[in-house]
Amino acid sequence: MEHKGNSFLQKVNTPDDLKKIDEKDLPILCQELRDFIIDAVSCNPAHFGASLGVIELTVALHYVFNTPYDKLIWDVGHQAYGHKILTGRKDRFHTNRKYKGISGFPNIFESEYDAFGVGHSSTSISAALGIAMAAKLNKEFDRQTVAIIGDGSMTAGQAFEGLNNLSSSKANMLIILNDNNMAIDPNVGGLSEYLVDISTSHTYNKIRNELIKGLEKLKITGPNAKDKITAINNSIKSLLTKQTNIFEGLNIRYFGPVDGHDINHLIKVLNDLKIIPGPKVLHCITKKGKGFKYAEENQTAWHATGTKFDKVTGEKLEVPTSKPKPPKYQEVFGNTIVELAEKNDKIVGITPAMPTGCSLNIMMEKMPDRAFDVGIAEQHAVTFSAGMAISGLVPFCNIYSSFMQRAYDQVIHDVAIQKLNVVFCLDRGGLVGADGATHHGVYDLAFFRLIPNLIIASPRNEHLLRNLMFTAQLPNQGPFVIRYPRGIGTTTEWQNPMQQIEIGKGELILDGEDIAILTLGPVCNKALQVCQKLKDENIYAALYDLRFCKPIDEDLLHQVFSKHKKVITIEDGTIIGGIGSAVTEFMVENNYNATIKKLGVPDKFIDHGTQTELQHECGFDKEGIYEAAKSLISE
Amino acid sequence: MEHKGNSFLQKVNTPDDLKKIDEKDLPILCQELRDFIIDAVSCNPAHFGASLGVIELTVALHYVFNTPYDKLIWDVGHQAYGHKILTGRKDRFHTNRKYKGISGFPNIFESEYDAFGVGHSSTSISAALGIAMAAKLNKEFDRQTVAIIGDGSMTAGQAFEGLNNLSSSKANMLIILNDNNMAIDPNVGGLSEYLVDISTSHTYNKIRNELIKGLEKLKITGPNAKDKITAINNSIKSLLTKQTNIFEGLNIRYFGPVDGHDINHLIKVLNDLKIIPGPKVLHCITKKGKGFKYAEENQTAWHATGTKFDKVTGEKLEVPTSKPKPPKYQEVFGNTIVELAEKNDKIVGITPAMPTGCSLNIMMEKMPDRAFDVGIAEQHAVTFSAGMAISGLVPFCNIYSSFMQRAYDQVIHDVAIQKLNVVFCLDRGGLVGADGATHHGVYDLAFFRLIPNLIIASPRNEHLLRNLMFTAQLPNQGPFVIRYPRGIGTTTEWQNPMQQIEIGKGELILDGEDIAILTLGPVCNKALQVCQKLKDENIYAALYDLRFCKPIDEDLLHQVFSKHKKVITIEDGTIIGGIGSAVTEFMVENNYNATIKKLGVPDKFIDHGTQTELQHECGFDKEGIYEAAKSLISE
Repeated sequence: MEHKGNSFLQKVNTPDDLKKIDEKDLPILCQELRDFIIDAVSCNPAHFGASLGVIELTVALHYVFNTPYDKLIWDVGHQAYGHKILTGRKDRFHTNRKYKGISGFPNIFESEYDAFGVGHSSTSISAALGIAMAAKLNKEFDRQTVAIIGDGSMTAGQAFEGLNNLSSSKANMLIILNDNNMAIDPNVGGLSEYLVDISTSHTYNKIRNELIKGLEKLKITGPNAKDKITAINNSIKSLLTKQTNIFEGLNIRYFGPVDGHDINHLIKVLNDLKIIPGPKVLHCITKKGKGFKYAEENQTAWHATGTKFDKVTGEKLEVPTSKPKPPKYQEVFGNTIVELAEKNDKIVGITPAMPTGCSLNIMMEKMPDRAFDVGIAEQHAVTFSAGMAISGLVPFCNIYSSFMQRAYDQVIHDVAIQKLNVVFCLDRGGLVGADGATHHGVYDLAFFRLIPNLIIASPRNEHLLRNLMFTAQLPNQGPFVIRYPRGIGTTTEWQNPMQQIEIGKGELILDGEDIAILTLGPVCNKALQVCQKLKDENIYAALYDLRFCKPIDEDLLHQVFSKHKKVITIEDGTIIGGIGSAVTEFMVENNYNATIKKLGVPDKFIDHGTQTELQHECGFDKEGIYEAAKSLISE
Repeated sequence: MEHKGNSFLQKVNTPDDLKKIDEKDLPILCQELRDFIIDAVSCNPAHFGASLGVIELTVALHYVFNTPYDKLIWDVGHQAYGHKILTGRKDRFHTNRKYKGISGFPNIFESEYDAFGVGHSSTSISAALGIAMAAKLNKEFDRQTVAIIGDGSMTAGQAFEGLNNLSSSKANMLIILNDNNMAIDPNVGGLSEYLVDISTSHTYNKIRNELIKGLEKLKITGPNAKDKITAINNSIKSLLTKQTNIFEGLNIRYFGPVDGHDINHLIKVLNDLKIIPGPKVLHCITKKGKGFKYAEENQTAWHATGTKFDKVTGEKLEVPTSKPKPPKYQEVFGNTIVELAEKNDKIVGITPAMPTGCSLNIMMEKMPDRAFDVGIAEQHAVTFSAGMAISGLVPFCNIYSSFMQRAYDQVIHDVAIQKLNVVFCLDRGGLVGADGATHHGVYDLAFFRLIPNLIIASPRNEHLLRNLMFTAQLPNQGPFVIRYPRGIGTTTEWQNPMQQIEIGKGELILDGEDIAILTLGPVCNKALQVCQKLKDENIYAALYDLRFCKPIDEDLLHQVFSKHKKVITIEDGTIIGGIGSAVTEFMVENNYNATIKKLGVPDKFIDHGTQTELQHECGFDKEGIYEAAKSLISE
């Protein structure tokens, strides 16, 4: 990859190099960094808009602060590409999110500049506060700690918990509120409107900016100069707006809003803030996708690119296929919930900030009163759904598997104990690919299986997904989990007429005598191909799709263990606690005696790569299944 | 139990009866209700302070609203005793929290007046919003929905998520902020200080009250009368205080503060608020323990009574014992962390709002700079601990097992993936007794076992607890979970010199040939008594304390399965996914063949009762263990 005209960026491999550049040349560096990211992501699909929005912030932070001694904690972290490029990973950036390449998120095992690993949102204030308090206890009083958090991440409860604690801590910590009025989709909720109010108050900003310029001219100096400026600034603000904002209400000094794309002003402000003790917030207004007009114009579509694209025309370059592709499970969900909701007026849809990702946006457009994007707020999403269910509605609460970890208590406490008919559509179950360890949805089968009253199912294809959704919305089903993976299904003919599935019933897919293979979810399709290959070698495998993780199909298992002494279980989830465990427990409880080989995700965190690469690493791709079968048969 | 002079209360069995009482007589009813609760709880230990603090609110709510059609959602729910007594459960109130008696919390299976089940904090806004939105969709436009939430519960992130969504929903919903400036312990954080600021602003209150009286005299009438009053009220307030509070900042109309013990004024205000559409907050100032002077004076000690007490002298009536009692595990933790921290200056202590309950208050007193109560904020507590651990400190993060469900994602995402040396002291693991289904800490072994990198241990006695704490704080241990139960240990001589335990090593407690019993945690002690009883019958059981759930002691298990064909596992946790599962998986993976009987908590929610009663119900008390052993041996 060539980078024409990156005369400044080519000299920068670390923040020390950056600091040698003259401040007046930084706008050029920023442009080069932006071009570098556009170049790189146009060839290697990745998150996109967020990093472009914080280029100036990133440069300013590394220019002003003494990283890695000073700690930058990026919330979520998909905006940290600029940070990665400036901290020794420029030459490896083309491996971003690729198998064995660098992670798409800050990762403490990758660089000492990555002060705290992230991936999920809204952890930065808590982590930074821990780091800031530790600095105090470790007597590293000069250490600066900065959390950079988007306004979308501010809607999650944990961010508020962090703010509430920061407030009473007196820690020397700076929060940069990166306010682009977007998460992946536009933000929702009162906080979002409130921030817009602050940042668009023209009178206030105009007067304020003039006053600040005036104050700068006064050149207040002396030991408490910055304090004085701040005090004046705050009281002016207070007088002008007659309101205390949420930060000030919590005793956190608030500065801004400032233009997050004015690099020289940012440097000035950050230098000022650096010597102000205690908790403080700098409110920066930025534009997601800044500098790439297509991304600025459609921020949701360009949150992550998904495919390669033409960086001049903005055209997304889909890989040409000879035949039509099956839809994603997400699209099937999105269309099917509308189809069901048209017939059952009790159905409502809920998503915590992922309407596009999970395709609930289809319902939001067609039935705006019955589809709810609650923002990044998984806990609320679940209890809110429970409140609707107790009132007789049938909420389909769609949450990505790894984010469901955020609402685990609410599933137990608000839904399962009360046996409410909430349908959890658990999107991105299993290994998700390029997002890596923080995002794999591989714990869900195991952490849900132990909760009483839950029905847990996972479809092997789109037809079954639709039938499960149909079944789940029938009266009095209780809590019902439907788990499906990220990505495309098996057929373009997915719009089957829906029919009810018997709860807890699995399915014999292929009969055979030599070995039994039990699967859950789409991995069944791979196993079927393996069975066909084995057949060519005169090995006859029986293949069962369990369909339900809970209740598990005991009749089917009696049948399996009566006939078979060699059993393989396969799941796109942790081997500990999932269906492999359930089948093993059943066997021992019922005094059968077979050799069981459990395939799935082993007991370690799996990094990023394609889903195929990672399934291979875990040993449950076709090759892994084939080898497990051969090895078990030869025992 | 006699209730002298409860001439009003005796006539009230339902809210309909209540509504027949003349408003002027309600203060007397309130006094009778208060006396009734003091009487009842003095004989039957329970939560105490919170219910006394909301007597007037409770009476006012049922007087003004049309329950159960209108929905009252009590946050946490231990303040709902008055509510229970007024809604058909007066005669059963002496069974409060007893086995097969009424629940200490609102419970939808117990009464139609309990609109939503609770136990954990901060769910009420989300649930009420779900109910209010459902009312809209169900076209029940006249339904009123009220969430009653304490200021302590407001510090949890979920409450903020709920507020943020309420704000943009335009739902007809009232939040009553029950502000007593306490959770169980005094509240912490910026929000708490902020609420005190609002409620103690004398000038503001004085002027405001006079203005309100003035407005009332104006008798503004007509279709939008209340709107007008509110608008005037808000603008006056805004002028007076020059500040927008957090609720108003989120577009939620704020009313108050009002005196939460002035029943007649409360009724007036609630009647006014009832007809104001949209989201609104009424800020009530109450006193926890109101009306029982000992509880008012020491609110933390009287949050729950723990023992019977003399209602005149306030003397707690401990059951007399002939010999000194062993300490609670909590006390051992509290003293031991101080002992360790005195030698290792990297140790810090963190608790989310349970300093007294978990005994971290001992460290908070002795080492205030190194012990942190972060408020009801489990998510923050874990990530904050992670931030400290990444900075070289050794945080002991003490969280009740059932509340740890709130921070599940943070344990995976912030601690386990990064392999940080956070020591989770998981208090109240296992069946907790009278708090019931919402509070049993029975899922933890299973939900933690599936997470990579975690060490999970559970001590059978205080000595082992201390040794595990000692071991966990040694360098580079990674994430370390120590799980112990609610309640007293085994010996008064608990202060053993501490020594390191080998990670993942279990212990042979008693040798025997006929059967092997494998236990984790204090249930080992019961099993030992059973073994001794069996010995009297010439049945020789081997007893092993596994000590670690993860990594499990494979050497020990090889030994067990080489020698034994009959194995019992016992754990005070779910049978699904815990050590019984781990042992079963090991056996099958290693091609052993034994009959395993798994004792523990079955796959259903367990209600309240004493720990002994519940262990009996689950079949792992002494009787259950004995029967399981006898039955297995006779097979």
